[in-house]
Amino acid sequence: ASYTTSSSSPKLLFRQLFEKESSTYTYLLADQSHPEKPALLVDPVDKTVDRDLSFVKDLGLKLIYAINTHVHADHVTGTGLIKTKVSGVRSIISKASNAKADLFVEPGDKICFGDLFLEVRATPGHTLGCVTYVTGDGPDQPQPRMAFTGDALLIRGCGRTDFQCKIWVEVQNCCINQCIHRQEHEIIFTLPKDTLIYPAHDYKGFTVSTIQEEMLYNPRLTKDEVLKSGCGRRNGGGDAVAVAGCKGRSVTVAEKFKSIMENLNLAYPKMIDVAVPANMVCGLQDLAFKSA
Amino acid sequence: ASYTTSSSSPKLLFRQLFEKESSTYTYLLADQSHPEKPALLVDPVDKTVDRDLSFVKDLGLKLIYAINTHVHADHVTGTGLIKTKVSGVRSIISKASNAKADLFVEPGDKICFGDLFLEVRATPGHTLGCVTYVTGDGPDQPQPRMAFTGDALLIRGCGRTDFQCKIWVEVQNCCINQCIHRQEHEIIFTLPKDTLIYPAHDYKGFTVSTIQEEMLYNPRLTKDEVLKSGCGRRNGGGDAVAVAGCKGRSVTVAEKFKSIMENLNLAYPKMIDVAVPANMVCGLQDLAFKSA
Ligand SMILES: [Fe+2]
Ligand SMILES: [Fe+2]
Repeated sequence: ASYTTSSSSPKLLFRQLFEKESSTYTYLLADQSHPEKPALLVDPVDKTVDRDLSFVKDLGLKLIYAINTHVHADHVTGTGLIKTKVSGVRSIISKASNAKADLFVEPGDKICFGDLFLEVRATPGHTLGCVTYVTGDGPDQPQPRMAFTGDALLIRGCGRTDFQCKIWVEVQNCCINQCIHRQEHEIIFTLPKDTLIYPAHDYKGFTVSTIQEEMLYNPRLTKDEVLKSGCGRRNGGGDAVAVAGCKGRSVTVAEKFKSIMENLNLAYPKMIDVAVPANMVCGLQDLAFKSA
Repeated sequence: ASYTTSSSSPKLLFRQLFEKESSTYTYLLADQSHPEKPALLVDPVDKTVDRDLSFVKDLGLKLIYAINTHVHADHVTGTGLIKTKVSGVRSIISKASNAKADLFVEPGDKICFGDLFLEVRATPGHTLGCVTYVTGDGPDQPQPRMAFTGDALLIRGCGRTDFQCKIWVEVQNCCINQCIHRQEHEIIFTLPKDTLIYPAHDYKGFTVSTIQEEMLYNPRLTKDEVLKSGCGRRNGGGDAVAVAGCKGRSVTVAEKFKSIMENLNLAYPKMIDVAVPANMVCGLQDLAFKSA
């Protein structure tokens, strides 16, 4: 078992930043070997934009993208504010989020900064448009890989699935089973076990985990013992194989997962009525949400 | 300029953990290549002991040391509590701290865990007994090196120096100049520039820095331009050289530093009357501080 929790690449500059009020992690990534030092921020928070931007300036980076993993319900994204303060920065969110931004990404897309890039993977469940950004695979890319999972996969947990997935269940004839199956497939089963998990939040003070560790200890992924002992697709494999090989197991896990999530009795989030409308227009330069 | 902020060694398991109330970072280090996976905690907090210990258990580690960088004034150390919960753990603090513990370390000592070790460096100023623990130099040791600076060097700051150094000035005919000179010598000038700085606290959400970065941007180290342009001992050198080559400069920097620190007008710390007496007996198994 390898729990090494650092990734190295001579090109990558990487920093994890914390916003205490909403316990949100913002991530700064840059290609410091490139003459322009192009940089991006994942999940910036409005309240810490000044900190983030002065940090970017200190390090001599050129911020080109401000990216969200999903439409947050617990804090207002910093992307709109960043765009008013630094010219040339483009906001990015998934097309499936239905939110506004300068650029929309879909599963399989690559977000390039210098010689480095992030891959986009669909991880719906917490929201319909949740994506996970994963550092690239290749000689210049950081090893082990790093997955910015948003709220899809948290350390020893995952984001609540009662926001949009409930609606989705009824309207689109989908089910939470498919959400978690999709998440597992995109994050857990097709990435190396030593991939580092960097979530959008942590409430207990953890900063990073690995896929291996979450497979073993995440209570929302380990309720079925089959998950621990493996089911023939631990090391990846196509979707067809995954579905064929694990359908029975997935259903069981998903049902248990669903029952855990339904019994959490989560409170209505404090910030949701402010944050979601604002975050739906995160990329707008006119900061429409200021009047909301 | 290199700002890479990850250190790698196939042997090292490393985790940064955060305690929100006092904004304290606790660090877990282990040699995961060793059959016993010996581990140590740097600056554990009493309130997060259960989290830390269940984490240690999850990862299959054997906790052997619970270490403090200094006698903390803002939180109660977790070392005493840890010793009541896990047998065989030994607490460590510097001899100069005058606090109680199972083992006392002095500058130059090594704390070994498996094939890895930490070096002890004296960095007085915030308190008389403040030390910095630095990962070893050698083939198996993590690269770049990692310095656990406690409150001696914080990211873009340093711990207040009005606790003990003021007394020290009068009683021991020492001066803050020597403190900061000592700190600079032990951390800034004799370690590689890419050494990672892991402080005991951060109040703005930063998680890590590098020596290079602090040399450039730490306001308490950069008040004299000489510091930026260098003075002939950037890459180390003996104490004699350091003092001979930089005496004039050091005095200037230290005077400016002293004036910054004196003008901070810091409030009396909330926790100090509880925390300091408790932390002076951090290694005691009878938890004498419980009755304090
Ligand atoms: Fe969320
Ligand atoms: Fe302190």
